[in-house]
Amino acid sequence: MASENQENVRGLKRVGVWFKGCLEKIMNVLTNAAKDAKKLGEEDPRRVVHSLKVGLAITVVSLFYYFDFLYQGFGVNAMWAVMTVVVVFEFSVGATLGKGVNRAIATLLGGALGVAAHRLASFAGEKIECSVLMLCVFLIATMVTFMRFFPKLKARYDYGLLIFILTFSLISVSGYRDDEVLDMAHRRLSTILIGGSATVFICIFICPVWAGADLHKITASNIEKLGIFLEGFGRVYFQLPNDKNSENQASMDEYKTVLNSKGIEDTLVNFAKWEPRHGKFRYRHPWDQYLKIGSLTRECAYKIDALNGYLNSDVQTPVEIRSKIQESCTMMSSECSCALRELAMGIKTMTRSLSADIHIVKAKTSAKKLKSLLKTGLWPDTDIFDIIPAVTVASLLIEIVSCTVKIADSVHELASLSKFKTPDEKMIKQLSLERVKRTPSIEGSHSFSVVFE
Amino acid sequence: MASENQENVRGLKRVGVWFKGCLEKIMNVLTNAAKDAKKLGEEDPRRVVHSLKVGLAITVVSLFYYFDFLYQGFGVNAMWAVMTVVVVFEFSVGATLGKGVNRAIATLLGGALGVAAHRLASFAGEKIECSVLMLCVFLIATMVTFMRFFPKLKARYDYGLLIFILTFSLISVSGYRDDEVLDMAHRRLSTILIGGSATVFICIFICPVWAGADLHKITASNIEKLGIFLEGFGRVYFQLPNDKNSENQASMDEYKTVLNSKGIEDTLVNFAKWEPRHGKFRYRHPWDQYLKIGSLTRECAYKIDALNGYLNSDVQTPVEIRSKIQESCTMMSSECSCALRELAMGIKTMTRSLSADIHIVKAKTSAKKLKSLLKTGLWPDTDIFDIIPAVTVASLLIEIVSCTVKIADSVHELASLSKFKTPDEKMIKQLSLERVKRTPSIEGSHSFSVVFE
Repeated sequence: MASENQENVRGLKRVGVWFKGCLEKIMNVLTNAAKDAKKLGEEDPRRVVHSLKVGLAITVVSLFYYFDFLYQGFGVNAMWAVMTVVVVFEFSVGATLGKGVNRAIATLLGGALGVAAHRLASFAGEKIECSVLMLCVFLIATMVTFMRFFPKLKARYDYGLLIFILTFSLISVSGYRDDEVLDMAHRRLSTILIGGSATVFICIFICPVWAGADLHKITASNIEKLGIFLEGFGRVYFQLPNDKNSENQASMDEYKTVLNSKGIEDTLVNFAKWEPRHGKFRYRHPWDQYLKIGSLTRECAYKIDALNGYLNSDVQTPVEIRSKIQESCTMMSSECSCALRELAMGIKTMTRSLSADIHIVKAKTSAKKLKSLLKTGLWPDTDIFDIIPAVTVASLLIEIVSCTVKIADSVHELASLSKFKTPDEKMIKQLSLERVKRTPSIEGSHSFSVVFE
Repeated sequence: MASENQENVRGLKRVGVWFKGCLEKIMNVLTNAAKDAKKLGEEDPRRVVHSLKVGLAITVVSLFYYFDFLYQGFGVNAMWAVMTVVVVFEFSVGATLGKGVNRAIATLLGGALGVAAHRLASFAGEKIECSVLMLCVFLIATMVTFMRFFPKLKARYDYGLLIFILTFSLISVSGYRDDEVLDMAHRRLSTILIGGSATVFICIFICPVWAGADLHKITASNIEKLGIFLEGFGRVYFQLPNDKNSENQASMDEYKTVLNSKGIEDTLVNFAKWEPRHGKFRYRHPWDQYLKIGSLTRECAYKIDALNGYLNSDVQTPVEIRSKIQESCTMMSSECSCALRELAMGIKTMTRSLSADIHIVKAKTSAKKLKSLLKTGLWPDTDIFDIIPAVTVASLLIEIVSCTVKIADSVHELASLSKFKTPDEKMIKQLSLERVKRTPSIEGSHSFSVVFE
C-alpha cells in the first residue's frame, strides 16, 4: 500500500516535471515571438499601423451585419464586402489600388459575360442549357488561364484575370439554379465596390504608405550606401589609423544589400505606377528613371564588391607598391564618396545637388594622374603577382569613377524630369549640417508577391 | 441637291475608311496576340495542358450545380468549391498542394475560432454581443496581419494567414445574423475540402508538373550553360578559326540567364518542399543542396561574366602576350567546360559522373603551370597596361577552375544524398552519344508570386 502510494507520488512528480518542461518551452517560444515582433515593429513602425488599419477596415465593413438598416439592403452578400477588404488591403497605396481596380473591373466584366452566357444558355433550350454552360465555363477558364502566361498581362493584370475567371464561373453556374442572375451579379459588384472603396479610403487617408515614396527613399539610400563604403575604403586598404574601426566596418558592409535590390525596385515601380500624384510627388514621376538609376547603382555595387574582395583577401600587396598608388586612390575614393553622398542627399531632399559635379571633376583628375603613373610604371624588379592586386584595385577605382559619372548624369536627368528645387544658400547650409538618416528596412514590409483572397 | 449627295457619299467613304482602319488595327492586335500565344505554347507546351486542366477542374466542380442529388447536399455553398478550384490551382503540384493545405488548415482553424467567438459573444448577452464581436474581429485581424510580416511565416504560410483572417471574420460576423454558425462553418469547410481535393487530384494525376523536377532540370541546365561558354571561350579569345561563329556566340551568351536565377530557384525549392516523393525522386530530396549548387553556379557565372567583358572589350592585348598564356588558358577553359558538362549530364540522368574528376585534375595541372609561368614572368619591356588584361583573364580562369571544383564537390554531395546510380559501361556509351537537351523556359511558367482568390 505504501509502495503503491510512493509510486503514485513519483508518477505525479514525473507528470509535474513534464508539465513544467512543456510550460517552459511554450514560454520560451512566446518570449522569442514577442522579441521578434518588437524588432519587426521597431524596424518599421508602419507595419504596426498597417495592421491596425486592416483591423479597422474589417471592423468598419462588418458594421453592415450589425445594423438592420444596412443589412436589409445586401443581406448575406455583405460577405463579399468583408472578403474584398481582407484580400485587397495591401501595405502600400499603389498595391491596394492596383488590386482594387483589378478586382472591380474584373468583377464587372466577368459578371457581364456570365450574365450573357446564362442568357445564351437559356435561349438554347432546357435540354442542352447545362451542356452549353459547361462548355462556356470550360472555354473561358482555359483561355483566360492561358492568358495569365503572357508576361505583360501577368505583370499588371494577373489578379484581375483570376477574378475574372472566378466571377464568370460563379455567375454563369449559379444562374442555372437562381434565375435572378442579373440581380446576383449586381449585388456582388456593388458589395465589392463598397468593400473596395472602404479599403482604398482607409488606406489613403490614414497614415498612407506610398510605394513611390519608398522607391524614392530606397534609391537615395542605395546610392548613399555606396558612398559610405568608398568613404572608408582608402583608410582600410592603406591601413591608415582609424579610431572607430568596428562600427565603420559594419556600415561599410551595408552596400551588399544593394546587390539584391532589383526585386524590390521592380515591385515598387509596379505599385508606384498605380498611385495618383500626391504630396512631394506633385509632378508625374518618371518611375522608369528610378529603374535606370537602380541598375547603374547595382553595376557600381558589383565593382565595389570586387574591391571589397581585395580589402579582405589574404594576399597582401607589399607596402612600397601600395604607397605608390595611395594618394590618387584615396583621393578618388573619397571624392566619389562625397559625390555619391551629395547625390543621395539631393534625391532625398528633392533638390538639385550642385557640389556633386565639383567632386566628380576632382575624382576624374585623380584618375587621369593614376593612369599616367601606371603607364610610366616604375616597377622594374617586382614580381608580377605582387603588382596585379594593386593595379586591379586601381583600375576598379577608375571604373567606379566612370560609374559615378553615369549615376550623376541619370540623377540630374531625374532632377530635371521631376523638377527638383534649386537650393538657395540657407538650404545649402542646413543640408551640410544634416546627415542622411537610414531608412527602415523597406524590403521586408512590401510584399514581393501579389497575394490573394 | 447634287452637292449634298456628293457630301453624303464623301462622308460615307470617310466612315468606311475609318472603319476599315479600325478593323485592320484590331486584326493586327489579334494576329500579334495569336503569334505570341503560339510562341508561349511552343516554348513550354505544359502551359497549354495546365490551362486545359484548370478548365476541366472548374467544369467538374460546377457539376455540383447541375445535378439535383449533388446540389441538395450543399446548395449555394457549392460556390466555395468553385472558388477554391480557381484560387488553389497552380502550375506545379507543389504550389497547388501548398496553397490547398494552407487553405484547408486555415479554414478549419479560422472557422473553429469564429464559432468560439460567436459563442463567447452570445454568452455576454444581447446588448454587448455586437461590441464583443467587433472587438474580437479587430484584435484577431490586427494580430494576424502583423504576423504576416514575420519572414518565416510569410515564406510558407502567408496564404494560410490571410484565409484565417477571412474565415474568422466571415464566420464570427455572419453568426450575428445566422444562428446556425456551426453548420455554416461545417458547410464552408466541407465544400472547400471537396474543391481542394478535386484540384489536387486533377493536378497530380493528369500530366503533373513537379516543381522538384523543374528545379532539378534548371540546376543541370544552368551548370551546362557555363560549360557551353567555356567551350567557346578559348577559340574566341585567342581568335582561332571557327566555322559556325554566329550560332556559337548566341549559345555562349546563354550563361547570362544564370545570373538572375536566384528568384526562380528559391520559388521552386519552396514549392518542391510541399511535394511528396514520386517517380525518379523516390528518396527524400535534399532540396537545400540544390540551393547550394545554385549559389555556387551563380558565383561562377559572375566570374564568367567578367571574362566575357574582356572577350568583347575594345582593349586588344598584343598577340605576342596572348600567345604566351594561350596553351594553358585554352586547356583550362576546355577542361572546365568538359567537367561542367559531365556534371550537368550526371544530374540530368541522375547518375554519378565519373569522368568529371579526371577533367578537373587536368584543369588544375594547367592552372599550376600557368601560375608558375606568370611568376617567372618574361615581360621585360612591355607596357603594364598591355599585360594587365591578359593576366586578369588568366587569373579569372584560375578562379573559375576553383569554382568548378566547388561545384563538382557539391554535385557529388547531392549524388550521395539522393543516391544517384553508378553508371555501367552500356550506359556510359549511351550517355556519351547523347547531348543534354535544352529545357523549355521554366522561369516564365511558374508564378513567382503566390496569388489569391
